[in-house]
Amino acid sequence: MRELEEKIREYGTVLPGNVLKVDAFLNHQVDPQLMLHVGQEFAKLFADEGVTKIWTVESSGIAPAVMTGLAMNVPVIFARKHKSLTLNQNMYVADVYSYTKKTTNRISISKKYVSPDDKVLMIDDFLANGQAVEGMLEIADQAGVDVAGAGIVIEKSFQPGAKELRDRGIRLESLARIKSLKDNQIEFMPD
Amino acid sequence: MRELEEKIREYGTVLPGNVLKVDAFLNHQVDPQLMLHVGQEFAKLFADEGVTKIWTVESSGIAPAVMTGLAMNVPVIFARKHKSLTLNQNMYVADVYSYTKKTTNRISISKKYVSPDDKVLMIDDFLANGQAVEGMLEIADQAGVDVAGAGIVIEKSFQPGAKELRDRGIRLESLARIKSLKDNQIEFMPD
Repeated sequence: MRELEEKIREYGTVLPGNVLKVDAFLNHQVDPQLMLHVGQEFAKLFADEGVTKIWTVESSGIAPAVMTGLAMNVPVIFARKHKSLTLNQNMYVADVYSYTKKTTNRISISKKYVSPDDKVLMIDDFLANGQAVEGMLEIADQAGVDVAGAGIVIEKSFQPGAKELRDRGIRLESLARIKSLKDNQIEFMPD
Repeated sequence: MRELEEKIREYGTVLPGNVLKVDAFLNHQVDPQLMLHVGQEFAKLFADEGVTKIWTVESSGIAPAVMTGLAMNVPVIFARKHKSLTLNQNMYVADVYSYTKKTTNRISISKKYVSPDDKVLMIDDFLANGQAVEGMLEIADQAGVDVAGAGIVIEKSFQPGAKELRDRGIRLESLARIKSLKDNQIEFMPD
């Protein structure tokens, strides 16, 4: 997505440890028009999948997920993230390891808002090691719902998450794909 | 706002301790169309204030804040919430006590995205004791930015936050105002 790549080139900064900082428009300050276009793009890509619900994980996934929900006219659920959470019969839960923060969070979705007829599109801001999407897939499995795929704003293609999801047969659509952040240079995957 | 009050009547549930649970459409599952209308309503209410930026606090404030930013065509910043955060010269921080969770969180906004010319509209999902808005006001004070006011999706008018903000001269616009949750009944303030 050209508009997104331009934003990344203009405002993204590379930090040590292959971190791409995009808090100018995505995960601290948010550009609402860009998020709308991101949502519209996901809606177009997944238009034929019969999506009934958007899932994401708080907090940075919420803006693109809500815009996707708006464009597709379906509800959005943001999974809550907890440092600790007692297992609860009203919740689906999965553990998600963060390589950046080196901590495990438990994510949860209330069973009340999951129907066996759901077909879920998972949205997230970043895909690196794929832990957040894996956690949502685990919940989808527990709940027995269909998965339309995953829509990612920025994929770090040089990290293992994207390949692992595609190898599992998950339809993955990433609006920007970063090939490398070597030498503080942002290099995109060729189209 | 009629559409919001109807949603609250239909899907809101009252829990012990004056808790109004609206995770069917606001803070776990999110209704994107409703959020768009909420954002458009705030945009209308604050249209003449010269707002340059929306501030909110993660996570439940993000959906209404981003829709308000979309409607007003201004950027949104969501303050990050941390259990602990070392003071950092690149960040404005304030401590926010949660009466519900009985914990203090430190919220932070990067100085990089704050300009002295900003006029900030603060958006949040709930106003009860007003701690989150007070925290953002403290940051606005540190940063020396003007405050247009606070836009709240659901105000619990029987708790002290709303009165305190109005007494301080803060313009407060709440789209639904709850007078009482006694006996598990949701009673709205008269118009």
